[in-house]
Amino acid sequence: MKLDKLVGDRFREKPSDCIVDSHALMVRGGYMKYVANGIFSSYMPLKRVTRKIEQIIREEMDAIDGQEVQFPVVMPASIWQESGRYESIGKEMARFNDRNGSPLVLGMTHEEAAVHLVREYGQSYVKYPFMVYQIQTKFRDEARPRAGLIRVREFTMKDAYSFHTSQADLEEYYDKCHKAYERIYARVGLPEVVSVASDSGMMGGSISHEFMLLTAIGEDSIAICNECNYRANMEAAECILHNEANADSEELTLVHTPNAHTIEEVCAFLKCDEKAACKAVVYQRNSDDHYVVLFIRGDLEVNETKLTNFLGYDIHPAVITEESGIVAGFIGPIDMKAECTVLFDRSLEGRNNLVCGANKCDYHYTGLDISRDVAGAEYHDFAKIQEGGICPVCGKPAITISRGIEVGNIFQLGTKYTKSMDMTYIDANGETQHPIMGCYGIGVGRLAASICEAHHDEYGPIWPLAVAPWQVHICAVRADDAEVKAYADKLYEELQSKGVEVIYDDRNVSAGVMFSDADLIGVPYRVIVSPRNMKQSVVEIVKRDKSFSVNAPMASAAEEMLKILAEAK
Amino acid sequence: MKLDKLVGDRFREKPSDCIVDSHALMVRGGYMKYVANGIFSSYMPLKRVTRKIEQIIREEMDAIDGQEVQFPVVMPASIWQESGRYESIGKEMARFNDRNGSPLVLGMTHEEAAVHLVREYGQSYVKYPFMVYQIQTKFRDEARPRAGLIRVREFTMKDAYSFHTSQADLEEYYDKCHKAYERIYARVGLPEVVSVASDSGMMGGSISHEFMLLTAIGEDSIAICNECNYRANMEAAECILHNEANADSEELTLVHTPNAHTIEEVCAFLKCDEKAACKAVVYQRNSDDHYVVLFIRGDLEVNETKLTNFLGYDIHPAVITEESGIVAGFIGPIDMKAECTVLFDRSLEGRNNLVCGANKCDYHYTGLDISRDVAGAEYHDFAKIQEGGICPVCGKPAITISRGIEVGNIFQLGTKYTKSMDMTYIDANGETQHPIMGCYGIGVGRLAASICEAHHDEYGPIWPLAVAPWQVHICAVRADDAEVKAYADKLYEELQSKGVEVIYDDRNVSAGVMFSDADLIGVPYRVIVSPRNMKQSVVEIVKRDKSFSVNAPMASAAEEMLKILAEAK
Repeated sequence: MKLDKLVGDRFREKPSDCIVDSHALMVRGGYMKYVANGIFSSYMPLKRVTRKIEQIIREEMDAIDGQEVQFPVVMPASIWQESGRYESIGKEMARFNDRNGSPLVLGMTHEEAAVHLVREYGQSYVKYPFMVYQIQTKFRDEARPRAGLIRVREFTMKDAYSFHTSQADLEEYYDKCHKAYERIYARVGLPEVVSVASDSGMMGGSISHEFMLLTAIGEDSIAICNECNYRANMEAAECILHNEANADSEELTLVHTPNAHTIEEVCAFLKCDEKAACKAVVYQRNSDDHYVVLFIRGDLEVNETKLTNFLGYDIHPAVITEESGIVAGFIGPIDMKAECTVLFDRSLEGRNNLVCGANKCDYHYTGLDISRDVAGAEYHDFAKIQEGGICPVCGKPAITISRGIEVGNIFQLGTKYTKSMDMTYIDANGETQHPIMGCYGIGVGRLAASICEAHHDEYGPIWPLAVAPWQVHICAVRADDAEVKAYADKLYEELQSKGVEVIYDDRNVSAGVMFSDADLIGVPYRVIVSPRNMKQSVVEIVKRDKSFSVNAPMASAAEEMLKILAEAK
Repeated sequence: MKLDKLVGDRFREKPSDCIVDSHALMVRGGYMKYVANGIFSSYMPLKRVTRKIEQIIREEMDAIDGQEVQFPVVMPASIWQESGRYESIGKEMARFNDRNGSPLVLGMTHEEAAVHLVREYGQSYVKYPFMVYQIQTKFRDEARPRAGLIRVREFTMKDAYSFHTSQADLEEYYDKCHKAYERIYARVGLPEVVSVASDSGMMGGSISHEFMLLTAIGEDSIAICNECNYRANMEAAECILHNEANADSEELTLVHTPNAHTIEEVCAFLKCDEKAACKAVVYQRNSDDHYVVLFIRGDLEVNETKLTNFLGYDIHPAVITEESGIVAGFIGPIDMKAECTVLFDRSLEGRNNLVCGANKCDYHYTGLDISRDVAGAEYHDFAKIQEGGICPVCGKPAITISRGIEVGNIFQLGTKYTKSMDMTYIDANGETQHPIMGCYGIGVGRLAASICEAHHDEYGPIWPLAVAPWQVHICAVRADDAEVKAYADKLYEELQSKGVEVIYDDRNVSAGVMFSDADLIGVPYRVIVSPRNMKQSVVEIVKRDKSFSVNAPMASAAEEMLKILAEAK
């Protein structure tokens, strides 16, 4: 490919709407173009990167006996009604009617389509296990697309679905897929990706893992134990606390606390630690605005994922009205008049001498002991794990919180979809059973952006060889010099004829423009042909990451380049 | 791949809803599964066929300097409003609103997206020409999906867009692309595909060609001249007629024609030939039901494509109401009272002594001479070309009408999109110009189905080697025989290790089941390992199309197979 024919503009200025480096560099380098919020077109360099990523994924999926298939992007609502997700998924699913008024949806994931494809095939236990996968466009109407290709609405995803006749067989395959994912990340140049325990969210099932590239610009918070192997998405991390009661249990006492609404104000007024406060956090059910009041230790935050999972329905932070009977700023667990669901976090279990609201304007209680003062309180884990918190596995106070980009996920789905969509098989004993499913996803564009996040400098991406848009970038500095041009032309032809993917810059531009464009294109090896080099009968071979630079004799430059590439693979 | 692990069912019965062979065989062979009207999932065998087709297309597009890019499936209405097609395209375009109420559409073609992608890049003449293409999912809400993959609503398409600074440059590239298409069809095994002149329809532009596989099950009618090279889609074929007037011009005479409504009834009643009748065909404008009355020679049919192109708006066959003032069954060009657009086909030009309706119930005129009796009549070509008709190129009455499946199309678009979307460049003289575009499409799934249509027998598809899901199919007949199994296992491993794509059937099933499954999978070469063959120390190598069958020594079977494959490529 000649650079002067490459469609797309490259420029130096960082676009003002780019908050992460990968986005800025991919816009500056002519990789992508904004079409609508969270919707982009790809130019050739990005398309080449994503195709190489796709091929690596494909090879690894084939290696674990995956069968590449294709599900539709547009699906009838009916199969989503079968699973129940037509109702349970909110606005992120795009819905429309066709010309005959039949409801259709855009695929945001394909569990339903996978069950639909194989439910006739998988009627006997002898057919199991099997896995089908696709690499296909998906659309998710995200509320907040951000960060270029990191969170978009339209994206290409590899999604795989496995079917099993026992939990043990699923687990074995799940581990195999986990290892395949590790190989994929290693091959695309991100061996540093780690897997973390995760929440299964709308996918259903219990055990799941996310593969995370740890980086400050990540959207997810990851709890990592410094003492053992424990790693979990904060959403899924259990919050372990060693609650202690005071030896002297005080009496419940109503206290006038004028103008003290927030937990900080109340604690300052009563001169107590926030850990001694019983804080109320109020939500409402999305479907009907029913109130949910959660009591939690004053210094802790609510993990809304755990809360939602416990409740089994979606919630949002409450808007407290006068009619609700909830006395905002003074909510407490004693004599609550409001009609609402009341929950207690484990951080309050067995504690005494707590401060809490009195459900009466300008009044709080001190001396609260929930087990003594509130009948039938149950405690569950609703708190966010904290930096320095206790590891749920090794028990040491060694948790650190990092940020990460989720570059893949794997789920043990169980029978959620095969039961709801009534997929069955006859087992070896002639009994009817529901197969057990796993599903396994990787977003291709997000992975490309993550590689760029992990491998770039201020001048551009530094693509790993396996996914680089081209392998070699020839710069003919002073292409107006006939000898330079003739030699560079020949080298270009020679490398291409040997199967090397070459981008060739023979424009009449300054070396500065040439090199800054080459930095933005991020090809791992650069060959510089110039009058100065030619005087010494050499070309310079320079690595984009600056890890080496050699002069190769002009006569053997192509062989030298081929040798370097062969060693790098 | 082991056949007993291949997801998908194969069966013998022809499904009752399959009207074409490719559809029936692809359903029977476990290639595809119905999801909704015109929407299918693909199993692995079809996915492998379409990926190979895609790769051939990609190589040929790259060879004519195409740059692979990717446009979104979901696009904002805004870019379609720019081109005007948001309004002009009807129900075939799927539209919906996102969570914020912004109107979105599903891409059914990507001219707008292509202009959007390159309009900043292409601001100087030095950047031209260039071509970008993608292979991507499209959705077209067809009124009548049919024939399996021949006419669907969701499909994968290669669509390419070229940009030029002169008509001559476009034409040069158009020819290059025409040749690339010929190579594509030859490589996928359809060298018999022919190009025909076509109507440009909603794409705009003037010159366009369709690539047609001639087959009785095709949806399109193609006019082919047996005397010269002329080939055109009937929609676009000019209807040439040598009109002659009678020497004796009769007088216009009102005739009572009770109960003679149709052209057949009137001609029978008046004992005249249908060629002597001036037939009225009535349409209505889609937008407001305005009437359009077209007069045409009694024996000819209306080419609605030509009529729509002339009118510049969409029409449908009329529902004639009493209020319209149109006297159904007795419509004629003299004294029409109804408010309507009146058109005359060229078949009536210069003719006399015609029969026509009198716009009065139960009355016709005889002796009509339009040039004499109707003021200001203009004549245009609205008639369908007929079998035996006159070739518009060589002038001989040698037209035959064939049916064809459109497996690709190429269009000279001109400046329709660059003007409406205001894409400009500065030419060498510093003047602002609109680039000239071409666009070039191939539907991948339809091409796969067409290959199957052209290459199959009653037992299954006969895939050409270049697109076959696998290259070799090993049948271990009597796999329960340990020697057969051991040898077949070894051959399978050996061929795979040499890079051959092998499907291996080692099931304990009868030879009949094995061979009928192999026929449905349609792999070009079959290797039969059986106790009988092994007694003679041979394997049978059989071609799916029955063109040859050889016995190869067991010891050198793999080399023999490799040799055959190498020669076939």
